Amino acid sequence: MSIKKGFKLWRQAKKIIPGGSQLLSKRVEMFLPEQWPAFFKKAKGVEVWDLDGNKYLDVNASIGACILGYADPEVNRAVKKAIDDGSNSTLNCPEEVKLAELLCKLHPWAKMVRYARGGGEAMAVAVRIARAYSGKSQVAFCGYHGWSDWYLAANIVNDKSLDGHLLSGLEPRGVPRELKGTAIPFRYNKIAELKKIVSKNKNIGVIVMEPLRHEEPKDNFLKQVRKIADKIGAVLVFDEVTIGWRLNVGGAHLKYGVNPDIAVFAKGLSNGFPMAAIIGKKEIMQAAQTTFISSSSWTERIGPTAALATINKMIDKKVPEHLNRIGRLVVKGLKQAAKNNQLKVTVAGPPPLIHFSFDYGADSQAIRTLFTQEMLKKKILASGGVYVTYSLKKKQAKRYLRAVEETFRLLRKAIDNNQVHSLLNGPIAHSGFKRLV
Amino acid sequence: MSIKKGFKLWRQAKKIIPGGSQLLSKRVEMFLPEQWPAFFKKAKGVEVWDLDGNKYLDVNASIGACILGYADPEVNRAVKKAIDDGSNSTLNCPEEVKLAELLCKLHPWAKMVRYARGGGEAMAVAVRIARAYSGKSQVAFCGYHGWSDWYLAANIVNDKSLDGHLLSGLEPRGVPRELKGTAIPFRYNKIAELKKIVSKNKNIGVIVMEPLRHEEPKDNFLKQVRKIADKIGAVLVFDEVTIGWRLNVGGAHLKYGVNPDIAVFAKGLSNGFPMAAIIGKKEIMQAAQTTFISSSSWTERIGPTAALATINKMIDKKVPEHLNRIGRLVVKGLKQAAKNNQLKVTVAGPPPLIHFSFDYGADSQAIRTLFTQEMLKKKILASGGVYVTYSLKKKQAKRYLRAVEETFRLLRKAIDNNQVHSLLNGPIAHSGFKRLV
Repeated sequence: MSIKKGFKLWRQAKKIIPGGSQLLSKRVEMFLPEQWPAFFKKAKGVEVWDLDGNKYLDVNASIGACILGYADPEVNRAVKKAIDDGSNSTLNCPEEVKLAELLCKLHPWAKMVRYARGGGEAMAVAVRIARAYSGKSQVAFCGYHGWSDWYLAANIVNDKSLDGHLLSGLEPRGVPRELKGTAIPFRYNKIAELKKIVSKNKNIGVIVMEPLRHEEPKDNFLKQVRKIADKIGAVLVFDEVTIGWRLNVGGAHLKYGVNPDIAVFAKGLSNGFPMAAIIGKKEIMQAAQTTFISSSSWTERIGPTAALATINKMIDKKVPEHLNRIGRLVVKGLKQAAKNNQLKVTVAGPPPLIHFSFDYGADSQAIRTLFTQEMLKKKILASGGVYVTYSLKKKQAKRYLRAVEETFRLLRKAIDNNQVHSLLNGPIAHSGFKRLV
Repeated sequence: MSIKKGFKLWRQAKKIIPGGSQLLSKRVEMFLPEQWPAFFKKAKGVEVWDLDGNKYLDVNASIGACILGYADPEVNRAVKKAIDDGSNSTLNCPEEVKLAELLCKLHPWAKMVRYARGGGEAMAVAVRIARAYSGKSQVAFCGYHGWSDWYLAANIVNDKSLDGHLLSGLEPRGVPRELKGTAIPFRYNKIAELKKIVSKNKNIGVIVMEPLRHEEPKDNFLKQVRKIADKIGAVLVFDEVTIGWRLNVGGAHLKYGVNPDIAVFAKGLSNGFPMAAIIGKKEIMQAAQTTFISSSSWTERIGPTAALATINKMIDKKVPEHLNRIGRLVVKGLKQAAKNNQLKVTVAGPPPLIHFSFDYGADSQAIRTLFTQEMLKKKILASGGVYVTYSLKKKQAKRYLRAVEETFRLLRKAIDNNQVHSLLNGPIAHSGFKRLV
């Protein structure tokens, strides 16, 4: 297997694009430095072809963006028709209204909708609306919510504030120091932390969190948060960018019976086309009219067209059921493979959104890198997780699990023989935010 | 002509979408309240079909986003191929690197590039990078730059700060009050105002402006701004979202021989597909690596594919020359029609980006509304401006000018007979930001 063209272009990319990629999680250095194919020519279903023509099974689904799989025929057909008919004009596209109606039908507590074209951007819109409604600047938050000033402001105080919220070490340079103290983190399932924040800060107008990621809510955590938000009159925003559409058709909060005031969707919503939606209660969303939130790119037609086609397919094909069924198979297989090879592996769900880690202290990341290297040799793009998609069928899941079993066996031997580092053909992968040269 | 379906859907849109549209400038109320067709079914070249099947000549080009015209065959072909081949994957798309190389070739002072998917978003990225590099929060700015916190912060002090910067009355609710004083406006061609700002504020790290919009730089204004930025060590950011690609292939600054440190492109860059680019000097763009700027939607393939196809067509077909040629024809025709009918009309260029206003004091907006109403009867979507596109050929420009001549004649009579208001079949259009119910 030769992947020369990809290596060469990645070197060029780093010269001309700071960080090489627009997404930290798509940097070569996050997977397998100096060995990862970096660029794609074609993607279809669960398969990707690199620039040298190698074909891979890919279980990362564009870091979760393509919930139906790559180049889904129904979604692509709808989008291409919109392009043929003109995807933009001085008039508005009716698909925006249809999509708003569908989103409100799926989430009956929500009555109004705005759009953006990316998850981080949509979260900034949501926080703007929430602050406009509450009239207060301070945000208490939990989890990862993107690159915007409102969020990174948390790290102005102390650059460890965002540690434990998915990506560690996020640097807030360029975020105005004036925002110091406006974003205060609490940890998932630690209701006491949120209680302490609201008792110490009287200017909390917004509470932002993912309803869940890899940890289930315990002791009525979501209900408790809802209660606190109501008590202090704060707007509760659920970030459903990553978890939404995977457990059920709509936000994960539906499953847990706790409604936010605003929910934000992106990624899975539109199967990899740029799109995001902010849905909310009427009186709160109307606050959008008391502030200026407007962008030309939010009016094009591809985004809502792709979202409508994606949601309709998710409904028709009962996609979340598929994701859960295949996900359970993969979780079971991963645990079994770890057990068979007596490897210390922690596998976290929920089944459609699997994350696993090797628990070997300082060697964990080297072992994870070796895992990716050996899986790549088997023509599988794999790291410490699986984003299950509608295109990942039992057959491909089993191919992945067979490769995992073989690779775990190799890891077992490598650990036993103290060969983890010597077997690596390149540097150890990064585990968080780091400057590239 | 019946446009019932559009009216009905617009009423529904306002119930479910705060403000009805994602872009202030695409609201029905900005053109012709209760009469505007609101939604489109199809758009091609300079023509738009509404939901009732009426066909219009449209001189607004999606508020400037579609510089080649709607549904351009070359751009659409390239985008549809990218969709067939998969528009997203875990690996990166090589088009990002190709586009970066092309943008740097066209702007030799720039060495690195980042992307976003909208103009406002890209400006926020540019300001983040500039602040990260300079280490200072305060921004001196001129012109319109979107919905982000950094910009609207200017209005926290006084909600008139942004008046005169294209859109008046932009409300900053939901923008943290902590940002008060971080964005300070100066007016175009008023170098003394910028000098005063930098002498009174020692924390100015960034100067943001459009190189021009409807006013040409006077007395070496751009060079003077450049000099001040250099003197105080501020990063100079040119917002080329609206003016870029219209005067020449690339940023308008190339024509004026003044290079910024960062330039931002959107709209014209990709002919209506969501895309934006931030280009800059190497050492400044590398500051992007000292802060966290990352989003999933920025990695999809349609944006850079559309931009490459659009730029290559602009080069091949010498598009800016066409825009200027047709634009001069339109400017001349508008002035002539005003003169023929002894109407007080101020026509502002540059030729590819025409703006005109009726100078009748308190009646100006009613006259403009009547103009739009009468042009609509002639099946032309027209307001106080013309965004010239590559699809607007001499024939259509002449059709537009004949309709203008006739409509100006009607306006003349209406003014003479004091009938401007009685001839209006609906309310007067809004002229700026206003809450919709």
